[in-house]
Amino acid sequence: MIFIATETDGPQIQDITARVGVFNQEEVETVTILWQEYLNDGPESCGYNFIVDRDGDLVLGFACYGPRDLTNGVYDLYWIAVNPDTRRSGAGRRLLAASEEAAQKAGARMIIAETSGTTAYDGTRKFYLDTGYVQEATIKDFYIDGDDLAIFVKRFQ
Amino acid sequence: MIFIATETDGPQIQDITARVGVFNQEEVETVTILWQEYLNDGPESCGYNFIVDRDGDLVLGFACYGPRDLTNGVYDLYWIAVNPDTRRSGAGRRLLAASEEAAQKAGARMIIAETSGTTAYDGTRKFYLDTGYVQEATIKDFYIDGDDLAIFVKRFQ
Repeated sequence: MIFIATETDGPQIQDITARVGVFNQEEVETVTILWQEYLNDGPESCGYNFIVDRDGDLVLGFACYGPRDLTNGVYDLYWIAVNPDTRRSGAGRRLLAASEEAAQKAGARMIIAETSGTTAYDGTRKFYLDTGYVQEATIKDFYIDGDDLAIFVKRFQ
Repeated sequence: MIFIATETDGPQIQDITARVGVFNQEEVETVTILWQEYLNDGPESCGYNFIVDRDGDLVLGFACYGPRDLTNGVYDLYWIAVNPDTRRSGAGRRLLAASEEAAQKAGARMIIAETSGTTAYDGTRKFYLDTGYVQEATIKDFYIDGDDLAIFVKRFQ
Protein backbone atom coordinates (compact mmCIF):
# COMPACT_ATOMS: atom_id res chain seq x y z
CA MET A 1 0.00 0.00 0.00
CA ILE A 2 1.22 3.50 -0.80
CA PHE A 3 2.25 5.84 2.02
CA ILE A 4 3.94 9.18 2.31
CA ALA A 5 7.48 8.23 3.35
CA THR A 6 8.49 8.85 6.95
CA GLU A 7 11.85 8.86 8.70
CA THR A 8 11.75 5.14 9.53
CA ASP A 9 11.61 4.31 5.80
CA GLY A 10 15.04 5.89 5.31
CA PRO A 11 17.25 2.84 5.81
CA GLN A 12 15.18 0.67 3.46
CA ILE A 13 15.08 3.45 0.82
CA GLN A 14 18.89 3.70 1.02
CA ASP A 15 19.21 -0.05 0.87
CA ILE A 16 16.94 -0.41 -2.17
CA THR A 17 18.78 2.39 -3.97
CA ALA A 18 22.14 0.73 -3.35
CA ARG A 19 20.98 -2.77 -4.28
CA VAL A 20 18.76 -2.07 -7.30
CA GLY A 21 21.85 -2.38 -9.46
CA VAL A 22 21.51 0.40 -12.04
CA PHE A 23 22.49 3.46 -9.98
CA ASN A 24 26.10 4.59 -9.75
CA GLN A 25 27.70 5.94 -6.58
CA GLU A 26 26.88 9.58 -7.39
CA GLU A 27 23.24 8.66 -8.00
CA VAL A 28 23.02 6.72 -4.72
CA GLU A 29 24.49 9.70 -2.87
CA THR A 30 22.03 12.03 -4.59
CA VAL A 31 19.09 10.01 -3.27
CA THR A 32 20.59 10.35 0.23
CA ILE A 33 20.91 14.12 -0.15
CA LEU A 34 17.33 14.55 -1.44
CA TRP A 35 16.03 12.30 1.33
CA GLN A 36 17.79 14.42 3.97
CA GLU A 37 16.32 17.59 2.45
CA TYR A 38 12.89 15.96 2.47
CA LEU A 39 13.22 15.06 6.16
CA ASN A 40 14.82 18.32 7.27
CA ASP A 41 12.98 20.90 5.18
CA GLY A 42 9.79 19.12 4.17
CA PRO A 43 8.54 18.49 0.62
CA GLU A 44 6.94 21.92 0.18
CA SER A 45 10.18 23.70 0.84
CA CYS A 46 12.67 21.38 -0.90
CA GLY A 47 10.42 20.29 -3.77
CA TYR A 48 11.03 16.56 -3.29
CA ASN A 49 8.17 14.26 -2.32
CA PHE A 50 8.99 10.72 -1.26
CA ILE A 51 6.39 7.95 -1.22
CA VAL A 52 6.81 4.28 -0.42
CA ASP A 53 4.91 1.11 -1.21
CA ARG A 54 4.93 -0.84 2.04
CA ASP A 55 3.78 -4.37 2.93
CA GLY A 56 3.72 -4.34 6.73
CA ASP A 57 7.14 -2.99 7.64
CA LEU A 58 8.74 -4.07 4.37
CA VAL A 59 9.34 -1.31 1.80
CA LEU A 60 8.60 -2.77 -1.66
CA GLY A 61 9.78 0.37 -3.44
CA PHE A 62 9.87 4.14 -3.36
CA ALA A 63 9.36 7.08 -5.67
CA CYS A 64 10.44 10.71 -5.50
CA TYR A 65 8.68 13.40 -7.52
CA GLY A 66 8.24 17.16 -7.45
CA PRO A 67 7.46 20.31 -9.41
CA ARG A 68 9.95 21.58 -12.01
CA ASP A 69 11.12 25.10 -11.25
CA LEU A 70 10.09 27.89 -13.62
CA THR A 71 7.27 25.88 -15.19
CA ASN A 72 3.57 25.98 -14.68
CA GLY A 73 2.36 22.43 -14.12
CA VAL A 74 5.37 20.26 -14.97
CA TYR A 75 6.30 17.56 -12.47
CA ASP A 76 9.44 15.47 -12.54
CA LEU A 77 9.57 11.84 -11.49
CA TYR A 78 13.09 12.02 -10.08
CA TRP A 79 13.46 8.47 -8.79
CA ILE A 80 11.50 5.27 -8.78
CA ALA A 81 12.98 1.98 -7.61
CA VAL A 82 11.63 -1.31 -6.38
CA ASN A 83 13.05 -3.72 -3.84
CA PRO A 84 15.04 -6.36 -5.77
CA ASP A 85 13.84 -9.01 -3.29
CA THR A 86 10.19 -8.49 -4.22
CA ARG A 87 10.24 -7.79 -7.95
CA ARG A 88 6.98 -8.26 -9.86
CA SER A 89 4.99 -7.24 -6.79
CA GLY A 90 3.34 -4.44 -8.78
CA ALA A 91 5.05 -1.85 -6.57
CA GLY A 92 6.48 0.02 -9.55
CA ARG A 93 3.09 0.56 -11.15
CA ARG A 94 1.48 1.51 -7.83
CA LEU A 95 4.23 4.03 -7.09
CA LEU A 96 4.02 5.49 -10.58
CA ALA A 97 0.22 5.79 -10.43
CA ALA A 98 0.38 7.40 -6.97
CA SER A 99 3.04 9.89 -8.11
CA GLU A 100 0.96 10.82 -11.15
CA GLU A 101 -2.20 11.20 -9.05
CA ALA A 102 -0.47 13.43 -6.50
CA ALA A 103 1.09 15.52 -9.26
CA GLN A 104 -2.27 15.94 -10.96
CA LYS A 105 -3.91 16.97 -7.70
CA ALA A 106 -1.17 19.58 -7.31
CA GLY A 107 -1.96 20.95 -10.77
CA ALA A 108 0.44 19.05 -13.02
CA ARG A 109 -0.30 19.18 -16.74
CA MET A 110 2.39 16.60 -17.41
CA ILE A 111 4.93 14.45 -15.61
CA ILE A 112 8.41 13.87 -17.00
CA ALA A 113 10.63 10.88 -16.37
CA GLU A 114 14.20 11.19 -17.58
CA THR A 115 16.11 7.96 -17.94
CA SER A 116 19.03 6.39 -19.69
CA GLY A 117 19.15 4.89 -23.17
CA THR A 118 21.47 2.03 -22.22
CA THR A 119 20.45 -1.62 -22.24
CA ALA A 120 20.59 -1.64 -18.41
CA TYR A 121 17.50 0.56 -18.60
CA ASP A 122 15.62 -1.43 -21.28
CA GLY A 123 13.13 -2.59 -18.63
CA THR A 124 12.69 0.93 -17.29
CA ARG A 125 11.94 2.39 -20.73
CA LYS A 126 9.51 -0.45 -21.47
CA PHE A 127 7.85 0.23 -18.10
CA TYR A 128 7.21 3.87 -19.05
CA LEU A 129 5.96 2.96 -22.54
CA ASP A 130 3.62 0.34 -21.03
CA THR A 131 2.19 2.90 -18.60
CA GLY A 132 1.27 5.60 -21.09
CA TYR A 133 4.47 7.62 -21.42
CA VAL A 134 5.82 8.81 -24.75
CA GLN A 135 9.54 9.21 -25.38
CA GLU A 136 9.30 12.76 -26.66
CA ALA A 137 12.99 13.63 -26.76
CA THR A 138 16.44 12.11 -26.80
CA ILE A 139 19.78 13.80 -26.20
CA LYS A 140 22.52 11.55 -27.54
CA ASP A 141 25.58 10.76 -25.37
CA PHE A 142 24.17 12.83 -22.53
CA TYR A 143 25.22 11.00 -19.37
CA ILE A 144 28.44 9.85 -20.97
CA ASP A 145 29.46 8.80 -24.47
CA GLY A 146 27.10 6.00 -25.53
CA ASP A 147 24.56 6.75 -22.80
CA ASP A 148 21.68 8.84 -24.12
CA LEU A 149 19.14 10.86 -22.15
CA ALA A 150 15.61 9.63 -22.90
CA ILE A 151 12.84 12.03 -21.88
CA PHE A 152 9.50 10.31 -21.29
CA VAL A 153 6.39 12.45 -20.90
CA LYS A 154 2.90 11.63 -19.77
CA ARG A 155 0.38 14.39 -20.39
CA PHE A 156 -2.74 14.73 -18.30
CA GLN A 157 -4.67 17.04 -20.60
CA MET B 1 35.81 42.47 -21.73
CA ILE B 2 34.82 39.27 -19.92
CA PHE B 3 35.37 38.98 -16.16
CA ILE B 4 34.38 36.54 -13.45
CA ALA B 5 31.51 38.36 -11.73
CA THR B 6 32.19 39.90 -8.33
CA GLU B 7 29.90 41.25 -5.64
CA THR B 8 29.85 44.80 -7.05
CA ASP B 9 28.31 43.46 -10.31
CA GLY B 10 25.24 42.31 -8.39
CA PRO B 11 23.06 45.42 -8.73
CA GLN B 12 23.67 45.71 -12.48
CA ILE B 13 23.01 41.98 -12.98
CA GLN B 14 19.72 42.35 -11.12
CA ASP B 15 18.87 45.46 -13.09
CA ILE B 16 19.60 43.84 -16.47
CA THR B 17 17.56 40.77 -15.52
CA ALA B 18 14.59 42.91 -14.55
CA ARG B 19 14.78 45.20 -17.60
CA VAL B 20 15.60 42.73 -20.36
CA GLY B 21 11.89 42.22 -20.83
CA VAL B 22 11.47 38.50 -21.36
CA PHE B 23 11.84 37.14 -17.82
CA ASN B 24 8.84 36.78 -15.54
CA GLN B 25 8.89 37.56 -11.82
CA GLU B 26 9.75 33.99 -10.82
CA GLU B 27 12.66 33.95 -13.26
CA VAL B 28 13.97 37.29 -11.99
CA GLU B 29 13.80 35.98 -8.43
CA THR B 30 15.59 32.80 -9.47
CA VAL B 31 18.54 34.81 -10.80
CA THR B 32 18.69 36.59 -7.42
CA ILE B 33 18.72 33.28 -5.56
CA LEU B 34 21.45 31.78 -7.78
CA TRP B 35 23.50 34.98 -7.48
CA GLN B 36 23.30 34.83 -3.68
CA GLU B 37 24.38 31.18 -3.70
CA TYR B 38 27.27 32.11 -5.99
CA LEU B 39 28.40 34.87 -3.62
CA ASN B 40 27.83 32.96 -0.39
CA ASP B 41 28.95 29.44 -1.31
CA GLY B 42 31.16 29.98 -4.34
CA PRO B 43 30.74 28.45 -7.81
CA GLU B 44 32.44 25.14 -6.97
CA SER B 45 30.01 24.42 -4.19
CA CYS B 46 26.76 25.75 -5.66
CA GLY B 47 27.44 24.85 -9.29
CA TYR B 48 26.61 28.30 -10.69
CA ASN B 49 29.31 30.36 -12.38
CA PHE B 50 28.55 34.00 -13.16
CA ILE B 51 30.56 35.99 -15.69
CA VAL B 52 30.04 39.56 -16.89
CA ASP B 53 31.00 41.53 -19.96
CA ARG B 54 32.11 44.90 -18.61
CA ASP B 55 33.05 48.17 -20.32
CA GLY B 56 34.70 50.16 -17.53
CA ASP B 57 32.16 49.98 -14.72
CA LEU B 58 29.23 49.33 -17.04
CA VAL B 59 27.98 45.75 -17.20
CA LEU B 60 27.01 45.01 -20.82
CA GLY B 61 25.61 41.59 -19.95
CA PHE B 62 26.05 38.48 -17.86
CA ALA B 63 25.91 34.72 -18.19
CA CYS B 64 25.48 31.92 -15.67
CA TYR B 65 26.57 28.37 -16.45
CA GLY B 66 27.47 25.21 -14.56
CA PRO B 67 27.77 21.44 -14.66
CA ARG B 68 24.62 19.29 -14.85
CA ASP B 69 24.31 16.93 -11.91
CA LEU B 70 24.63 13.21 -12.59
CA THR B 71 26.24 13.68 -16.00
CA ASN B 72 29.80 13.39 -17.11
CA GLY B 73 30.67 16.50 -19.11
CA VAL B 74 27.32 18.24 -19.64
CA TYR B 75 27.18 21.95 -18.87
CA ASP B 76 24.06 24.07 -18.73
CA LEU B 77 23.90 27.67 -19.83
CA TYR B 78 21.35 28.73 -17.24
CA TRP B 79 21.10 32.43 -18.04
CA ILE B 80 22.46 34.86 -20.56
CA ALA B 81 21.20 38.43 -20.82
CA VAL B 82 22.51 41.65 -22.26
CA ASN B 83 21.98 45.20 -21.10
CA PRO B 84 19.04 46.62 -23.09
CA ASP B 85 20.82 50.02 -23.18
CA THR B 86 23.78 48.60 -25.11
CA ARG B 87 22.27 46.04 -27.45
CA ARG B 88 24.35 44.99 -30.47
CA SER B 89 27.55 45.53 -28.48
CA GLY B 90 28.55 41.91 -29.14
CA ALA B 91 28.27 41.14 -25.41
CA GLY B 92 25.96 38.17 -26.01
CA ARG B 93 28.43 36.43 -28.31
CA ARG B 94 31.39 37.21 -26.05
CA LEU B 95 29.54 35.86 -23.00
CA LEU B 96 28.47 32.74 -24.87
CA ALA B 97 31.99 32.08 -26.18
CA ALA B 98 33.49 32.61 -22.71
CA SER B 99 30.94 30.27 -21.11
CA GLU B 100 31.68 27.59 -23.72
CA GLU B 101 35.44 27.99 -23.30
CA ALA B 102 35.22 27.72 -19.51
CA ALA B 103 32.95 24.69 -19.76
CA GLN B 104 35.31 22.99 -22.20
CA LYS B 105 38.28 23.68 -19.93
CA ALA B 106 36.32 22.05 -17.11
CA GLY B 107 35.75 18.96 -19.24
CA ALA B 108 32.41 19.65 -20.90
CA ARG B 109 31.54 17.45 -23.88
CA MET B 110 28.51 19.60 -24.62
CA ILE B 111 26.70 22.69 -23.40
CA ILE B 112 22.92 22.88 -23.28
CA ALA B 113 20.78 26.01 -23.49
CA GLU B 114 17.12 25.56 -22.72
CA THR B 115 14.83 28.30 -23.91
CA SER B 116 11.26 29.06 -24.83
CA GLY B 117 9.51 28.45 -28.13
CA THR B 118 7.45 31.66 -28.01
CA THR B 119 7.89 34.57 -30.40
CA ALA B 120 9.36 36.64 -27.54
CA TYR B 121 12.35 34.31 -27.78
CA ASP B 122 12.67 34.30 -31.60
CA GLY B 123 15.87 36.35 -31.31
CA THR B 124 17.27 34.07 -28.63
CA ARG B 125 16.69 30.93 -30.68
CA LYS B 126 18.22 32.59 -33.77
CA PHE B 127 21.21 33.62 -31.61
CA TYR B 128 21.85 29.99 -30.64
CA LEU B 129 21.42 28.72 -34.20
CA ASP B 130 23.81 31.41 -35.46
CA THR B 131 26.43 30.40 -32.92
CA GLY B 132 26.56 26.68 -33.69
CA TYR B 133 23.82 25.22 -31.52
CA VAL B 134 21.35 22.63 -32.76
CA GLN B 135 17.80 22.43 -31.46
CA GLU B 136 17.94 18.75 -30.59
CA ALA B 137 14.69 18.45 -28.67
CA THR B 138 11.36 20.15 -28.06
CA ILE B 139 8.83 19.49 -25.32
CA LYS B 140 5.52 20.99 -26.36
CA ASP B 141 3.58 23.21 -23.92
CA PHE B 142 6.31 22.83 -21.32
CA TYR B 143 6.44 26.18 -19.53
CA ILE B 144 2.72 26.70 -19.98
CA ASP B 145 0.21 25.83 -22.69
CA GLY B 146 1.51 27.31 -25.95
CA ASP B 147 5.05 27.81 -24.60
CA ASP B 148 7.36 24.98 -25.66
CA LEU B 149 10.72 24.03 -24.21
CA ALA B 150 13.42 24.19 -26.88
CA ILE B 151 16.65 22.37 -26.00
CA PHE B 152 19.68 23.69 -27.87
CA VAL B 153 22.91 21.71 -27.75
CA LYS B 154 26.44 22.57 -28.81
CA ARG B 155 28.80 19.60 -28.84
CA PHE B 156 32.54 20.03 -28.44
CA GLN B 157 33.59 16.64 -29.73
